Amino acid sequence: MKYCSECAAAVTLTIPAGDNRPRFVCTNCGTIHYQNPKMVLGSMPVWERDGELKVLLCKRAIEPRHGYWTLPAGFMENGETTAQAAIRETEEEAGANIELGKLFSMLNVVRVQQVHMFYLATLLDLDFAPGIESLDVQLFSEAEIPWDDLAFPTIRATLELFFAERARMREAGSRDDYGFHEHDIHRAMRSDDAT
Amino acid sequence: MKYCSECAAAVTLTIPAGDNRPRFVCTNCGTIHYQNPKMVLGSMPVWERDGELKVLLCKRAIEPRHGYWTLPAGFMENGETTAQAAIRETEEEAGANIELGKLFSMLNVVRVQQVHMFYLATLLDLDFAPGIESLDVQLFSEAEIPWDDLAFPTIRATLELFFAERARMREAGSRDDYGFHEHDIHRAMRSDDAT
Repeated sequence: MKYCSECAAAVTLTIPAGDNRPRFVCTNCGTIHYQNPKMVLGSMPVWERDGELKVLLCKRAIEPRHGYWTLPAGFMENGETTAQAAIRETEEEAGANIELGKLFSMLNVVRVQQVHMFYLATLLDLDFAPGIESLDVQLFSEAEIPWDDLAFPTIRATLELFFAERARMREAGSRDDYGFHEHDIHRAMRSDDAT
Repeated sequence: MKYCSECAAAVTLTIPAGDNRPRFVCTNCGTIHYQNPKMVLGSMPVWERDGELKVLLCKRAIEPRHGYWTLPAGFMENGETTAQAAIRETEEEAGANIELGKLFSMLNVVRVQQVHMFYLATLLDLDFAPGIESLDVQLFSEAEIPWDDLAFPTIRATLELFFAERARMREAGSRDDYGFHEHDIHRAMRSDDAT
């Protein structure tokens, strides 16, 4: 940020009176331009038949991480709820019709000033298709998931948490709901991971 | 937003190619200025002795809702996790030492493009004191809570969800943990409520 978005004068990085951290402040009109973390919302659409569960993943057609696999997700927009954002992103990227479940994971990615959240979701049919930000959309069983070609650490963490909890519940014969999971991401997926 | 923060030229509100909603786009350098919801993080610090539970509330010294009561909370900053933000806000507004528990509530406030989140928290001592954004800090039992003088609907919803769940668990003799609650706020606390 170099210029004030209200009056076009130069901004300077300074700690405003009564504050305790540097902000971009306009040298002319005094407007303080706060910058805050962004939310990335997505879903984990599953299709389960005869005891076999598969998860829907999208192959990214855009940078960062072009060609790598992700759960459908993207930046939450003004004017929508977290749940609405997750449904919208799933429609846009995977053309998928889902019934949204509960929030499953919240992952802090401090390094890029983002908080990622993924909802459980049930795929209502198999009429999915790649949107313009996806090269491909496919269903994967746990064994089929391309673990080495996942786009972001938040995707890996969410899938790992999900399959670990599912295994625990199956072993215990539990019919409990899935819980809510918090996790902090401390490192990049790859050295070239920009998000 | 009137001017580009990168080159100071005028921005125009238009739907960029490949997008589906209006954005502020620079008429000179083409930078797209996205605007996204902000996160407000806070805690619900409780002090429990001899079966009596009290919640820490702060009386606001700033607008909006000056003089009304709130749980300690504020905008999440870049460079911190959601949990760190909740602890920081509790220290800043209430001077309180807490042990942070699990995330208890997430409340979508679409009207003001915010998502509010509150963590469970245990007060470690009674050495709390109002910070510069608070006029007063006090402990309240459920019966003492100033329900008519709460600052925001997200505070009311979080307290109501908490006491309802506590009552259910006590009635059932349950020792379960508190769950995670999602809630959408559809209306303002008061007609003069700006946040």
